[in-house]
Amino acid sequence: MPNTTIHTGRHFLQIPGPTNVPDRVLRAIDMPTIDHRGPEFAQLGHEVIDATRKAFRPKKPVIIYSSSGTGAWEAAMVNTLSPGDKVLMAETGQFSTLWRALVQKMKVEVDFLPGDWKRGADANQIEEKLREDKDHKIKGVMVVHSETSTGAVTDIPAVRKAIDNAKHPALLFVDTISGLASIEYEHDKWGVDVTIAGSQKGLMLPPGLGFNAISDKALAAHKASSAIRSYWDWGDIVEANKSGSWPYTPATNLLYGLKEAIAMLNEEGLDNVFARHKRHGEAARAALAHWGLQNQCADPKAYSPILTAIVMPDGHDADQFRKVVLDNFDMSLGAGLGKIKGKVFRVGHIGHFNDLMLMGALSGVEMALDLAKVPHRSGGVVAAMEVLTGRGATQASRAVA
Amino acid sequence: MPNTTIHTGRHFLQIPGPTNVPDRVLRAIDMPTIDHRGPEFAQLGHEVIDATRKAFRPKKPVIIYSSSGTGAWEAAMVNTLSPGDKVLMAETGQFSTLWRALVQKMKVEVDFLPGDWKRGADANQIEEKLREDKDHKIKGVMVVHSETSTGAVTDIPAVRKAIDNAKHPALLFVDTISGLASIEYEHDKWGVDVTIAGSQKGLMLPPGLGFNAISDKALAAHKASSAIRSYWDWGDIVEANKSGSWPYTPATNLLYGLKEAIAMLNEEGLDNVFARHKRHGEAARAALAHWGLQNQCADPKAYSPILTAIVMPDGHDADQFRKVVLDNFDMSLGAGLGKIKGKVFRVGHIGHFNDLMLMGALSGVEMALDLAKVPHRSGGVVAAMEVLTGRGATQASRAVA
Amino acid sequence: MPNTTIHTGRHFLQIPGPTNVPDRVLRAIDMPTIDHRGPEFAQLGHEVIDATRKAFRPKKPVIIYSSSGTGAWEAAMVNTLSPGDKVLMAETGQFSTLWRALVQKMKVEVDFLPGDWKRGADANQIEEKLREDKDHKIKGVMVVHSETSTGAVTDIPAVRKAIDNAKHPALLFVDTISGLASIEYEHDKWGVDVTIAGSQKGLMLPPGLGFNAISDKALAAHKASSAIRSYWDWGDIVEANKSGSWPYTPATNLLYGLKEAIAMLNEEGLDNVFARHKRHGEAARAALAHWGLQNQCADPKAYSPILTAIVMPDGHDADQFRKVVLDNFDMSLGAGLGKIKGKVFRVGHIGHFNDLMLMGALSGVEMALDLAKVPHRSGGVVAAMEVLTGRGATQASRAVA
Amino acid sequence: MPNTTIHTGRHFLQIPGPTNVPDRVLRAIDMPTIDHRGPEFAQLGHEVIDATRKAFRPKKPVIIYSSSGTGAWEAAMVNTLSPGDKVLMAETGQFSTLWRALVQKMKVEVDFLPGDWKRGADANQIEEKLREDKDHKIKGVMVVHSETSTGAVTDIPAVRKAIDNAKHPALLFVDTISGLASIEYEHDKWGVDVTIAGSQKGLMLPPGLGFNAISDKALAAHKASSAIRSYWDWGDIVEANKSGSWPYTPATNLLYGLKEAIAMLNEEGLDNVFARHKRHGEAARAALAHWGLQNQCADPKAYSPILTAIVMPDGHDADQFRKVVLDNFDMSLGAGLGKIKGKVFRVGHIGHFNDLMLMGALSGVEMALDLAKVPHRSGGVVAAMEVLTGRGATQASRAVA
Repeated sequence: MPNTTIHTGRHFLQIPGPTNVPDRVLRAIDMPTIDHRGPEFAQLGHEVIDATRKAFRPKKPVIIYSSSGTGAWEAAMVNTLSPGDKVLMAETGQFSTLWRALVQKMKVEVDFLPGDWKRGADANQIEEKLREDKDHKIKGVMVVHSETSTGAVTDIPAVRKAIDNAKHPALLFVDTISGLASIEYEHDKWGVDVTIAGSQKGLMLPPGLGFNAISDKALAAHKASSAIRSYWDWGDIVEANKSGSWPYTPATNLLYGLKEAIAMLNEEGLDNVFARHKRHGEAARAALAHWGLQNQCADPKAYSPILTAIVMPDGHDADQFRKVVLDNFDMSLGAGLGKIKGKVFRVGHIGHFNDLMLMGALSGVEMALDLAKVPHRSGGVVAAMEVLTGRGATQASRAVA
Repeated sequence: MPNTTIHTGRHFLQIPGPTNVPDRVLRAIDMPTIDHRGPEFAQLGHEVIDATRKAFRPKKPVIIYSSSGTGAWEAAMVNTLSPGDKVLMAETGQFSTLWRALVQKMKVEVDFLPGDWKRGADANQIEEKLREDKDHKIKGVMVVHSETSTGAVTDIPAVRKAIDNAKHPALLFVDTISGLASIEYEHDKWGVDVTIAGSQKGLMLPPGLGFNAISDKALAAHKASSAIRSYWDWGDIVEANKSGSWPYTPATNLLYGLKEAIAMLNEEGLDNVFARHKRHGEAARAALAHWGLQNQCADPKAYSPILTAIVMPDGHDADQFRKVVLDNFDMSLGAGLGKIKGKVFRVGHIGHFNDLMLMGALSGVEMALDLAKVPHRSGGVVAAMEVLTGRGATQASRAVA
Repeated sequence: MPNTTIHTGRHFLQIPGPTNVPDRVLRAIDMPTIDHRGPEFAQLGHEVIDATRKAFRPKKPVIIYSSSGTGAWEAAMVNTLSPGDKVLMAETGQFSTLWRALVQKMKVEVDFLPGDWKRGADANQIEEKLREDKDHKIKGVMVVHSETSTGAVTDIPAVRKAIDNAKHPALLFVDTISGLASIEYEHDKWGVDVTIAGSQKGLMLPPGLGFNAISDKALAAHKASSAIRSYWDWGDIVEANKSGSWPYTPATNLLYGLKEAIAMLNEEGLDNVFARHKRHGEAARAALAHWGLQNQCADPKAYSPILTAIVMPDGHDADQFRKVVLDNFDMSLGAGLGKIKGKVFRVGHIGHFNDLMLMGALSGVEMALDLAKVPHRSGGVVAAMEVLTGRGATQASRAVA
Repeated sequence: MPNTTIHTGRHFLQIPGPTNVPDRVLRAIDMPTIDHRGPEFAQLGHEVIDATRKAFRPKKPVIIYSSSGTGAWEAAMVNTLSPGDKVLMAETGQFSTLWRALVQKMKVEVDFLPGDWKRGADANQIEEKLREDKDHKIKGVMVVHSETSTGAVTDIPAVRKAIDNAKHPALLFVDTISGLASIEYEHDKWGVDVTIAGSQKGLMLPPGLGFNAISDKALAAHKASSAIRSYWDWGDIVEANKSGSWPYTPATNLLYGLKEAIAMLNEEGLDNVFARHKRHGEAARAALAHWGLQNQCADPKAYSPILTAIVMPDGHDADQFRKVVLDNFDMSLGAGLGKIKGKVFRVGHIGHFNDLMLMGALSGVEMALDLAKVPHRSGGVVAAMEVLTGRGATQASRAVA
C-alpha cells in the first residue's frame, strides 16, 4: 500500500491549470528584477508583446495584464460595453456561469442560453437568438472556447458563422483561458473580437498574467464605451506598449517567464503543440472508455484535448476520490465545479506534458479507482498506451473496415 | 575610463522600486506552482495573509491582489466610493497626480490641494478644507505617505488628527506603496481606513502584487458603495481568504516569494528595517550636501528614508545624467517624473540593501557627476561614510554644542 | 505515434544514477557561494558532516570529497593499503570489474573471485579463501553492496560473518555508491571498515561528491599505510573537519545541496526511504514477470530495490531498444555495461521518486517494447499497479495459502 | 553605527576566491541533472571541453576534474613525474608553500628557491639553478603565476626564457588557479607544459572543478611516468573526452555552469576581462596608497590585477580587522595565510565584478579602518574613483611630465 503521509518525487499537478511550469520558465522568472523604464526592459517588452501576439495568431495588439484570467474577463467587458448593455452568452459549464455573474456585476444584462454542461455552445441557438434581435440590442456574443469545467470545446468558427448568418453587429467574445497554446485557435482568421486568456494553462506559466486579444471593431467599441475603467483600460496600455513599456509597473519576472515559455512553444511548433494535446486527449478517453466510466462531455466532436472530466458512478463522491488520489499518489486532480461538484473529477493533460507523465497520471487514477473501490474495468492504462503507440488507432481503423 | 558597452558584475538597481529582490525570495518564487485549491495551498494562503497583516500592523484583513500598486489604488476606490462622490487629495508629487487622474476616471470628484512637490501633505490645509465642508460632501481624504517622485514623507498621524479635529467623517486613504516595510507605518494605530501598497518596494518582491489594508469603517463603506466592481471586490476575497484561498487563481509563485520576504523582514525585525532605511537616507543626504547639490524635498522633517531626489544644476539634464550612470556604471537611477522630468534624478536606497551597496551607489553618482562635468564638490562619499560609521553624527552634535 | 524529435514535459531520468534531483536540492545549490573560511561556512560544514554521518549510520567520521564515486574508491585504497598489498574481491558485475582495475593501478594485487554477474558476492567462497590465507597476506575484502550493473545486492552481514568465521584480520571494504540512502545499510553495526559512496544516487544530488565512512581499524591502517597520497588523505580532512572546514576549497554549492537532501531524507525517515525503494523494486519485477522477460539478477534474495536490469530476448539489441525509448518517450534508461553490453538494459527506480513516476517509466518501457517489436505479454503495467495498490501482494499470499 | 548582528542586502564576497557567482551561472547549475552517457550530455561535453580550451588559449586538450584546484595540482604531478624525481620550485607565498608540501607527499624532491613573499618568482635565479643542473636531474620547474596569498604575479614568459636560456629540458608547471580568465595568460604561446587552474576564481563558478592544460611534451612525460594514478590519469580522460564523455560520472551541473560562464567571458571578450581586472587593481592600489597603508607585494611590475594584499600597521591584527569588516559590513575579506597570518588582509577584485562593487568593497575597508581605529588617511575611496573615472591616471601622467 502506498504511504499516504509522506510524499517523495515530483508532485503530479493534473488539475487543468495551473499546469506544470517547465524548469526553463521557472529559472527565467528567477532572474533579478530590472528597471521597468530602462532600455533592457524596453527590449523585453517588445519581445513579449510581439511573441504573445504570434501565440494568439492575431495581427492586432495583445494586451498583457498583471491579473488572473478573471481580470482579463473584466477587462474585456469594461473596455467594450457600458452599463445597461445586453449580451448573449451560452451556458457551457461553470466558467460560463462565473463569467455571467461577472458581466452582471458590470451592470450588463445577460441573455443566458441554457446548456446541459455536456457540450460546447450551440451555434444554431445563437443564430436564432440573434435573428430575433431585430433592433440589435445585443452588443456581444460570449462563448467559452475551452470550458475547463466539463472538457467540452466550442466550435468558434461555427459561432462566427452564426453571427454572420444573422447579419448581426454584436462583438464576439471568446474565453480561451485554458485553450490558448494548447488547442487550435485563430483570433483573426476566426473573426473573434476579444479573446480572453491567462498565463497558467497552455502558456505553462505560473498564474499572474491575463490577456486580451482585440479586433479593430473591438477597439472602436472601446472608444465608444462609457464604462468606468482605469487599470483595465486598453488605451493607455496600447499607447505605452508602443515603446515596450506599460502605464504602470508590469509583473517583470512573469514577463521573463512569458518570453521563455513562448520560445519553448515555438521550438516545439504550435501545430505540434496542438497535435500533442489531441493525442493525449484520445489516450485519456481510451482509458476512460476501458474503465467503463462516463465522460462529462457527451459530444465526441467537442471532446477537449486538454482535460478529461470523468463522471463518478452513483454512490461515489468525486471529491472523496480526489482525496484518495492526493493522499496515496501525490497527484492533484481538478474538482467538479458548481452544480457538478462531487459528481465529476477532472484530469488535466495540458501544458508542459508528455506521454510518460500522462501514463503516470492515468495509472494514478486507475490505482485510486481500485483503492476507493469504484467499479471499473482494470487495464485502462493499457488502452491508453495502445493509442499512444498507434496500435489503438490501427485497431479502431480495423474495426471500421 | 569605464567600458560603457559591456557590463559585468551585478547591476545596481537604484530606482526607488522595483527594488533588489533577495536571492532567497527569487528562489522561493522559482518553486513549482501548486494546486490553488489543495490543502498545501490553503496553508500557504493562511500564512501569507496572516504574515502580511502583521507587516501592515493592522488587526483587520489585508487584501492581496494580482496587480500592480495602481490596481490596489483602483481597488481602494471602487470598494468604498461611488461615482459622483467627492474626495480631498493633497498634491505631493507625481504619484498624487496620477492617483487623482485615476480617481477622476472612477467618476469621483477630486478637490486637489495644490502642493509644490517639495514636502508632504499639509495637515492644516486639510483640516481647514474639512471644516469648510459642513455638510460632509467629502467622502475621503487621500494622501501619499511616501511620495516616491520627490522623496517627501507625509506625517499621517497629523493628517488623522486634522480629520479628527474637524470632526469630519471622511475616510482616510493612504498610499504607502513605497513606504510599506521600509518606513514606520501603523495602519490601525494611526487610524487609516484604507492603506494601499505594492510588492516591489520595501517588500522586496518582484512587481505583481497589490495590497489593501482596511478598517471597519472602510468595510462598512464597501457595503454601502454602489460602484461597479468584480475583480477588486473585497467581499468575495475576504470570504475566500477565510479558508486560505482566493475567488480566482492567485499568483501562487509571487505568494511563495511574499512568504519568504516577510520571513526575512521578521528575522531582521521591522523596527530594525525602519532604522536601517533612516540611516541610509541620512548618509545619502550627507553625500548630497557635500556635493553641493539640492534635495528636491525642501522640508527636513519630511526627508524620505527610502530615496533621495536630487535636483540637477541648471544647464544639466537629469535624464542625460542617468544615461551616463547607466552606460558607465550599470546602475539604474529613477527619473524625474511629470513636471520635474529632466530636472531631478532619484537614488533609491530601499529594500534588500546594505551599507556597501549604498556606498557603491553613491560612488557611482559621484563618478558620473565627474564624467558628466556636473559642478560638485568631490568627496560626498566620504561624508556618507562618516554618517555610516557614526563619526558624521558625532561631528554634527559637536557642531551644535 | 509519438513525436520522436521534439520533447516536452519532464525528461524521465531512469538510469540508476545520476537520479532525479529534487527541486529543493537544486534551489539550495543555486544559492551564492560563500567564504569557505568564514563562520557561516563553518556552521554549514559541521551540519553536513554530522548529517552525512547519520545517513551512513556510523559513529565514526565520514569523509566528503569533491570527486566522483570513483574518486572515493581510490581514496579508500590509498588511505589503507600500500603498493604490493593483496586484496580479495568478489566479481559481481561491471562495477566490481572497474574497481579491480583501479585497485590494480594502485599496484595492489587482486584475488578476483569469479562471478556470473547474476547475484551478489558469495560469502562462503570468501570465507573459504580467507581460511586458506593462513599467513594473512590478504589485507582487504572488497565487495560491491549494490551492484548497479546487474541489480544484485550483496548480503554484507554475511560477508562480515565470513571474515569473522575465518578469524581473518582483513579490512572489509564496501562500495555502496548506489545503495546509500536507498537500501538498508549499517556501516558500524555491520562491521564495515571502509564504505564508499557518491552523491548522485540515493542522496539525490548531482554528481560531484564522493564519500568514505571509516572504522577505527581502517584509521589505524591509514596510519600504517605507505601509499603516496595527498588529495585523498583522510588525516588532513579529519583534522580540518573538526572546525567545520576542509584542507582545500570544498564544493560549497554541492554541500548546500547535501544539507537539503539529507533534510529531505530525514523528513521521510530513512526506514521509509528503504521501504519505498523495496516496494518499487517489487512493482518493477511484477511488470517484468508479466512481460515474460528475464531479470539479469537470478537470485531472488539479491533483487535490488533500486534498479531492475532486464535481459533482452535473443535477436534484440538493448542499446537499440534504449534509443527507441529515448527518441519516443524522452526517457533515459541505463545501458548494459561491460560484458553484457547490448544484452541488458536497466531501469532505475532510485532517489527522488514515487509511484506515478515509476508507472510512467514502466509504461514507457512497455510502449517501447511494442514499438520495437520485442516479444512480450502486454499489461505489465497492470501487474505493477497491483503490487503498488497491495492487490498483487494479497494475491501472492493467497496463492501461498 | 552599523548593526553588527543582522545582515541585509547582498553579501560582499571579496576573498580572492571563491568569487561572486553570476546569477546566470547559478541558474545554469540549477537545471536538472541529465544522463551522462546520453546524446544531450555528449553535446554538452564537447562544448565545455572546446570552450575551456579557448579560455586557456592552448591548442592541446584541457582536462576537467571533479576536484578542487589542489586536486589539479596533484593531477599535474602524478601524470608527469615519478617518485624520486626532483623539481625546482620558486617560493612566492603560501600557495607555493602548500604546493611544495603536496609535491613532497608525492615523494618528489623539491629544490625550493627561497622568496620573501613580496614579489613573483625570480627568473634569473631559476636560470642559474638550471644551468648548475648539468645532468638534468631537475624534471620540472614550478611557479605560481598568480600568487593569491600575496597579490604578486610571476612573469611566466621570463621563466620560460630562463629555461630556454639554460637549454634545460625540465617541464614548466604553472599554477594559475586565481589567474585563469582574469589575468592575461597564454598556455601555448608562453610554452607552458602543464597549467593548473580551478573553477572558483576568474571562471566565476562555485568550487568543484579543477583543470590541467597540457603540452605535447607533458603528454610524452605522462607516458613515461611510473607514478601510481587512476582518478587523475590523463590517458583515460583524453580518450573519453573524444566522445564528449568522462571515464567516470562528471559533475554535470557544474559543467552546465562552466558552459554559461565561458559564454559570459566570451561576450565580454577575454581581453576586456583582463583590462577590467587591471583597472580595478589600479583603483584598489590608489585607495591603499591614499590610506597610507602598505601593499604586501613590493614589486610594482608584479602587482596583481585580481587582489590587493594589505599589510596591517604594527599593533593591529589583520584577522581582528577582518572580523570588524564582516560584522559591520557583511563583507568577507581574505585572511593573511601562513607566515603572514594576522599581518595581512586581502581584498579580492576578481571574477563577476564591476566598478560599483569595487567601490562598495573599498568603502567597507575604509569605514572599518575607521571603526577599528587603524591609522590611515581618510578618502582612499576618492582616490580609487579618480582612477576609475580616468582622472587619477591623468594626474599620474601629469606628475611624470
